[in-house]
Amino acid sequence: MTDVIVAVDGMGGDVGPEVVLAGLDIARQSHKDVTFAVFGQENIVCPLLSEYPILSAQVNFTHCAVSIGMDEKPVSALRQGRRVSSMWCAIDSVHRNTAHVAISAGNTGALMAMAKVILRTLSGIERPAIAGMWPNLHGKSVVLDLGATVGGTVSQFAQFAVMGSAYARNILGISNPRVAILNIGVEDVKGTDHVRDAASILAASDMNFIGFIEGDGIGQGVADVIVTDGFTGNIALKTAEGTARQMSEYLRQALSRSLMSKIGYLFARRGFLELRSRMDPSVFNGGMFLGLNGSVIKSHGGTSPEGFAYAVDVAIDAARSNITNHIRADVKSMQNFLDTAWTETLG
Amino acid sequence: MTDVIVAVDGMGGDVGPEVVLAGLDIARQSHKDVTFAVFGQENIVCPLLSEYPILSAQVNFTHCAVSIGMDEKPVSALRQGRRVSSMWCAIDSVHRNTAHVAISAGNTGALMAMAKVILRTLSGIERPAIAGMWPNLHGKSVVLDLGATVGGTVSQFAQFAVMGSAYARNILGISNPRVAILNIGVEDVKGTDHVRDAASILAASDMNFIGFIEGDGIGQGVADVIVTDGFTGNIALKTAEGTARQMSEYLRQALSRSLMSKIGYLFARRGFLELRSRMDPSVFNGGMFLGLNGSVIKSHGGTSPEGFAYAVDVAIDAARSNITNHIRADVKSMQNFLDTAWTETLG
Repeated sequence: MTDVIVAVDGMGGDVGPEVVLAGLDIARQSHKDVTFAVFGQENIVCPLLSEYPILSAQVNFTHCAVSIGMDEKPVSALRQGRRVSSMWCAIDSVHRNTAHVAISAGNTGALMAMAKVILRTLSGIERPAIAGMWPNLHGKSVVLDLGATVGGTVSQFAQFAVMGSAYARNILGISNPRVAILNIGVEDVKGTDHVRDAASILAASDMNFIGFIEGDGIGQGVADVIVTDGFTGNIALKTAEGTARQMSEYLRQALSRSLMSKIGYLFARRGFLELRSRMDPSVFNGGMFLGLNGSVIKSHGGTSPEGFAYAVDVAIDAARSNITNHIRADVKSMQNFLDTAWTETLG
Repeated sequence: MTDVIVAVDGMGGDVGPEVVLAGLDIARQSHKDVTFAVFGQENIVCPLLSEYPILSAQVNFTHCAVSIGMDEKPVSALRQGRRVSSMWCAIDSVHRNTAHVAISAGNTGALMAMAKVILRTLSGIERPAIAGMWPNLHGKSVVLDLGATVGGTVSQFAQFAVMGSAYARNILGISNPRVAILNIGVEDVKGTDHVRDAASILAASDMNFIGFIEGDGIGQGVADVIVTDGFTGNIALKTAEGTARQMSEYLRQALSRSLMSKIGYLFARRGFLELRSRMDPSVFNGGMFLGLNGSVIKSHGGTSPEGFAYAVDVAIDAARSNITNHIRADVKSMQNFLDTAWTETLG
């Protein structure tokens, strides 16, 4: 009996099974007690899998005839992929309790649509959010929504705060997470009416709401849970990834600049390997869908094997901490507060 | 007769004259033909200035009794500061043609309010925008609006595109700048109705509109002009600065990690000094107000002397290129297009 079973959509992503399997092969090195239930097209996945004998011992493979394309619209993905696609089967195994968590590097819209159909949104939650673990100078913080919903009402902000707090408490082990709203200034008068209304609602809750933070506060670790709408959150995440990639490229150039810098690199090699891994934009990878009856993790479609392995770590943390049950319980216990926020949204 | 005269609000910023003067002392080293017209309280600025004898020879100092506080509301700043504050006098010297450009590290709201009162918005422009020079892997790109206006209509997006293109052409020397709209996906169906409407307007213009880009495209240099609303733009900018600061801190830790890494640093010193300066979040500093009859540059309030010096570089570039006249001419020649965008906004 293994500890955790991770259902893996073996076909998702821009490059597909090659990156997924290479990523699993990295992840399995630190997770020997995890079983990967991989779903995909046999003629494509199995020959690749045979190149990873150690990984293969941790994989249960199931053939699925259909793969969802990266450009497929959610409605068409549901029509073509119901019951027969690798994405559907991975999520469905969470619903059937044959896996603890599902992960896919496939099309976000299709993944969210299938997750909602199969797992259903939690009672008390309007729409699921995508939450990311954002590395900061002191550890990690949770940022949501990273792009599940464009916009987001005041009541959704309240739901994001409750779910994000549960995530920070149970996965990051922060007993009383500091919650902040992303804004263009820290003063009360800054930003849109929308973020100000959401702030006054959160200030009246039992949560540890610390007010607004600006974009540079995320990486400084000023808050543990950062609440924002899906449009802004996605722009912030991609901008941070892009900046990390830019800085990594500068580092690469500096280290290969001259013979002297190459000698310097040899001396400081261990420090630089660590530095490179911390500056790797893949560390931002692995968005969790919060607000469903079950855990689903979205990896970037265009990630590297290392990036997919990060997302697998996120999935395993979610499974081990039983995050779905904690969120369900917190949403229930905060129902009065969420109802108030909902009334406020209606005006 | 000097080449360029830069009017400097000597009192602005969180730390005030110390950083402003230290920043000017860095900037003057590469701008020996520039005169700095510094405005501020004599008893505070002059003793500090006397510590910089070489800089002093390039400074014309004018006493102003009032300084605008960082938390002062724009309305109150205008009431207290009209004609008598260092901020007002710096901007006013651009209006009176005794300086080519003004720079302040003071309160953004107050600076914009005074700039609008003194210089007036350009004919054909609804509201000024703040444009930033964003370093990317291949050079720089222009991002606007960085926070002058929360929201932003479709017609403002069109104006941002025209002004940003003029900025890229005349300051970055890009003859046919690629214009993009910041969005959460590159496909036509992604994002809000608002960005999609703006995209269809820009696609019908004579500008080199290349569609949507995501946050990570900015640092990769995918576009020369990135158009967005002030809320999103400010979040993206601050997030990039925060990530750069985070990466710089990781670099510092890696270099001081062990004796070996310190030895490595000595060998590769030149490469690392260059790396540090490229990873310095100050390189994002210096937002230009576009859309006024005159050039005003906003430096971060909490910047370092190096950061203020970057903003002075932006100011000098703006003055040398005579950017205001170029923007005025472009807005005039694109008036038909802007009128169409305006009609579209009205629905």
